[in-house]
Amino acid sequence: MVSYTFYAKALRLFQAYPSLSKILIVSTVGGGSLLAFSDDCRPFLRVFTDGGQQPESKKKKVVVLGTGWAATSFLKYLKSESYEVQVVSPRNYFAFTPLLPSVTNGTVEARSIVEPIRNILSKRPYQIDFKEAECFKIDASNKTLHCRSAQVTNLGGKEEFTVDYDILIIAVGAQVNTFNTPGVSEYAHFLKEVEDAQKLRNTLVDCFERANLPSVSDEERKRILHFVVVGGGPVGVEFAAELHDVVVQDIAKLYPSVNNLAKITLLEAGDHILNMYDKRITKFAETKFQRDGIDLKTGSMVTKLSAKDVSTKDRATGECGSIPYGLVVWSTGIAPRPVILDFMKQIGQGSRRVLATDEWLRVEGCDSVYALGDCATINQRKAMEDILAIFGQVKKDDTNFLNKQEFRKVIGDITERYPQVQLYLKKSKVKNMVALLDKYEGEIDIEKFKEALSQVDSQMKNLPATAQVAAQQGEYLAKCFNRMEKCEQNPEGPRRFRTTGHHRFHPFRYKHFGQFAPLGGEQTAAQLPGDWVSIGHSTQWLWYSIYASKLVSWRTRMLVVSDWFRRFTFGRDTSRI
Amino acid sequence: MVSYTFYAKALRLFQAYPSLSKILIVSTVGGGSLLAFSDDCRPFLRVFTDGGQQPESKKKKVVVLGTGWAATSFLKYLKSESYEVQVVSPRNYFAFTPLLPSVTNGTVEARSIVEPIRNILSKRPYQIDFKEAECFKIDASNKTLHCRSAQVTNLGGKEEFTVDYDILIIAVGAQVNTFNTPGVSEYAHFLKEVEDAQKLRNTLVDCFERANLPSVSDEERKRILHFVVVGGGPVGVEFAAELHDVVVQDIAKLYPSVNNLAKITLLEAGDHILNMYDKRITKFAETKFQRDGIDLKTGSMVTKLSAKDVSTKDRATGECGSIPYGLVVWSTGIAPRPVILDFMKQIGQGSRRVLATDEWLRVEGCDSVYALGDCATINQRKAMEDILAIFGQVKKDDTNFLNKQEFRKVIGDITERYPQVQLYLKKSKVKNMVALLDKYEGEIDIEKFKEALSQVDSQMKNLPATAQVAAQQGEYLAKCFNRMEKCEQNPEGPRRFRTTGHHRFHPFRYKHFGQFAPLGGEQTAAQLPGDWVSIGHSTQWLWYSIYASKLVSWRTRMLVVSDWFRRFTFGRDTSRI
Repeated sequence: MVSYTFYAKALRLFQAYPSLSKILIVSTVGGGSLLAFSDDCRPFLRVFTDGGQQPESKKKKVVVLGTGWAATSFLKYLKSESYEVQVVSPRNYFAFTPLLPSVTNGTVEARSIVEPIRNILSKRPYQIDFKEAECFKIDASNKTLHCRSAQVTNLGGKEEFTVDYDILIIAVGAQVNTFNTPGVSEYAHFLKEVEDAQKLRNTLVDCFERANLPSVSDEERKRILHFVVVGGGPVGVEFAAELHDVVVQDIAKLYPSVNNLAKITLLEAGDHILNMYDKRITKFAETKFQRDGIDLKTGSMVTKLSAKDVSTKDRATGECGSIPYGLVVWSTGIAPRPVILDFMKQIGQGSRRVLATDEWLRVEGCDSVYALGDCATINQRKAMEDILAIFGQVKKDDTNFLNKQEFRKVIGDITERYPQVQLYLKKSKVKNMVALLDKYEGEIDIEKFKEALSQVDSQMKNLPATAQVAAQQGEYLAKCFNRMEKCEQNPEGPRRFRTTGHHRFHPFRYKHFGQFAPLGGEQTAAQLPGDWVSIGHSTQWLWYSIYASKLVSWRTRMLVVSDWFRRFTFGRDTSRI
Repeated sequence: MVSYTFYAKALRLFQAYPSLSKILIVSTVGGGSLLAFSDDCRPFLRVFTDGGQQPESKKKKVVVLGTGWAATSFLKYLKSESYEVQVVSPRNYFAFTPLLPSVTNGTVEARSIVEPIRNILSKRPYQIDFKEAECFKIDASNKTLHCRSAQVTNLGGKEEFTVDYDILIIAVGAQVNTFNTPGVSEYAHFLKEVEDAQKLRNTLVDCFERANLPSVSDEERKRILHFVVVGGGPVGVEFAAELHDVVVQDIAKLYPSVNNLAKITLLEAGDHILNMYDKRITKFAETKFQRDGIDLKTGSMVTKLSAKDVSTKDRATGECGSIPYGLVVWSTGIAPRPVILDFMKQIGQGSRRVLATDEWLRVEGCDSVYALGDCATINQRKAMEDILAIFGQVKKDDTNFLNKQEFRKVIGDITERYPQVQLYLKKSKVKNMVALLDKYEGEIDIEKFKEALSQVDSQMKNLPATAQVAAQQGEYLAKCFNRMEKCEQNPEGPRRFRTTGHHRFHPFRYKHFGQFAPLGGEQTAAQLPGDWVSIGHSTQWLWYSIYASKLVSWRTRMLVVSDWFRRFTFGRDTSRI
């Protein structure tokens, strides 16, 4: 590619007179003024920096695994230039996953909800390197990652390479949990990746086109048009609801002869769908589904999937059944990826189900490794584990009784370090920690202190595996990294009870901004903080506006909004491409 | 799906009181008033019509094979309700193929250029049935089509069925011509179908991502980023030009470290690219490509493709060469599909290269079968074949000399039946047919008449295989079908010279509205009727506006225009999905 820019001309000049290049390096290193010319000059500068004439970078090498919510949020908020950042992920784009169910039904296009990671990175004020590859082994003892290109093309063999790191940030997400149910990985569709949604969309159209062929028997036609959703969580429910809309709004017009044969069944192992939501939302959804003719089977476990049948077992009666289907969507939760399971064994977490981090998102039992998003959970420290240490810091000198004045001073540290305390106080309707001790007469000794706090740990809860949590963790970690040096000198976190001094940073705290459950027919349920519940058409518009505002770039925002507009105006696209 | 509409309720009412249904049928058949309720009532009416209580349809069964330019244009213009129309095609959508090169580079999205065929059909005033299947055998003697579902899913086996027809319209298009070059079908990319463009787009991104991996050697990197286009026709040239734009405008920013390694080579077996265009356009394009750094190798034939190398042979010197490549795009012309080759054998056209029709688009040697678009060519009748018959009709009674008065009367018929006459007159700069005979002295006998017309057939030309021709043929044929009964009685075509009377219809006549060749960098060349040539930025805007206006629906129009807008504002999308 020939491009006659200033830089190309300058490059040729320097090639002709090599001595000039030193002047350029001085000017670059000195004032960085040439950098102000932005993008175009990068390849040019690279000519010299690659030559090794510049002093070796003393920056710490940070490697980020993943391009999902957590990783992208981290990269977006990282402002400090004291790191050399590299991103490794098999997906060269960020996907706005909450809109995946909309992609399956053609309400929104797949390309509208993705943003190339290189676009995001090119807007950062410093250079971040991206490698499209999958990390298949984390070697924590040598601080090395083993990576492999995820491409399946005829461009060459499977490229494998290693990447060294000083600091590792694991944000690889999770995979679908099949609970080892036979046949699921062969026959079920998932709703985890963009490719899943695209495949699902095409299979949906396939079902209707095939049911429309003259050689298909009526019974077979019914089977092909039976859509089974396994899992009554928000994703499964949203998919079932959107699918119902598609059938009523679009298929009825385009496939009039088979439209009345389509049937949707939702299988849920628990007693209710949307069981993590408020009961009012569950009830509304169940009633709406019944009215829509969606067959809701709760208490029904899937034991096996064959090419044409779902085998089920009723949890209460133990009765077994078999349902012929044309399409099964499996949406029952997540499990760790193999690379994470292997890593857990290396660092002594082999007996755990999920990778554990502390409240600062540092992987337990491992140096300089952070994990965030769906691939890890925070192992919240129990207050009772540290009860002696806490008491030791607040007792009167030379006695075994509580010094209430000292205690008041550290209440803030305690509630920050053990957030379950706050939840317990709220649940027990006790004003504050001092009030908790008020029921004891006389001086408080260690036994009374233990007794008063004995129940607080019952309030510990794992965070849900949502985009909201992952994004907040990414932002939190980036902000810690930005203030790393400052906080080394002036720690801002809570007091350390077992040793002395303070933690460098405040621990991560999740702020819940509410959760949506789209229920089809332009109706959405929302559970907002403070037990607020909102259901209906206006909530759908709230959903539209919040999702539009949360989209990662103006490009995706424009695309998704125009997709919605297109859907309202022209209906959904049923082309099988 | 339960939908509590008026019709569902009515249906239940009729199921309870069957006698009522007769009233409904009477009202339907009598006034058709219920039909005015449109779409919603169709599945309901079907309940009764399927029962066979309605009188058997006497309509002729027209089967259309294909959903491309010719078929869609035919369906769009067909207004007569005296046919029962069925469409069979493996693609359930129409694709606006001239924008395919834009899809490969992400300038336009694949979904923006397709329109579901069912959307198009649902807007027709009468019901048209669509089957998503591929016709793999045409049995002309039994008037039966053997079809098979093209789906590769786990929905069931390969569905096969037959479709009977009274009138068959073949518009299946063509396939890529590999000229049996070894390795082409395995390793090359094509630009024929939407899937090709999508695959090509992902492979392009793959190339850049892979070249960016640390384990790839510099030499390998150069190979991976070498893009070879085979064929210097308008599609190959447009693809090469757009690819150059992508590299300069987008890749430079997003992949700064490998950008300067990318190289494009265009191989053309002839002496010039764009050889069907005006010489000025060819020259402009060749100069622009040279300036852009696109390596243009004319006179170079491809003899073999291996996984990583293109083998070439210089047409002049016979010298053989080998070019390492990362991506090859093969765009060298078209060949008939296997189903057409088989059909040609059946009807005695086995020795021909392409299916032949007469000027009314009727397949030669076959009853009630029409072929249009890329799958057939019009076998223009030679004037010399009919020269005796023509002369017989215009000679003086009882003599062997031309009656000039009679001759004048049939000149219109002759030039309509043999359009090459007109072209010959224009080329020879002769005013009209009478003037052609003026150079002979005395009375004109058959020998002089023959001599005067002996050169006209040299002006016969096959029509190009373009969307423009296919669309005009579809429109022409639909308009013939619309006026079938009327023209049976009052034929409007030219005089039949060999027998008596007139042909039913005017023969098909192609109107050339010009042709575009986008050359990248917001520049386009256009060859307009009357040897007008226009090249440059303003022509690019002409291209934008004509393509936008020609798009098949308001939906695709909106989508493509917003894609262009998006590309101008945000650049192209390089996500690999």
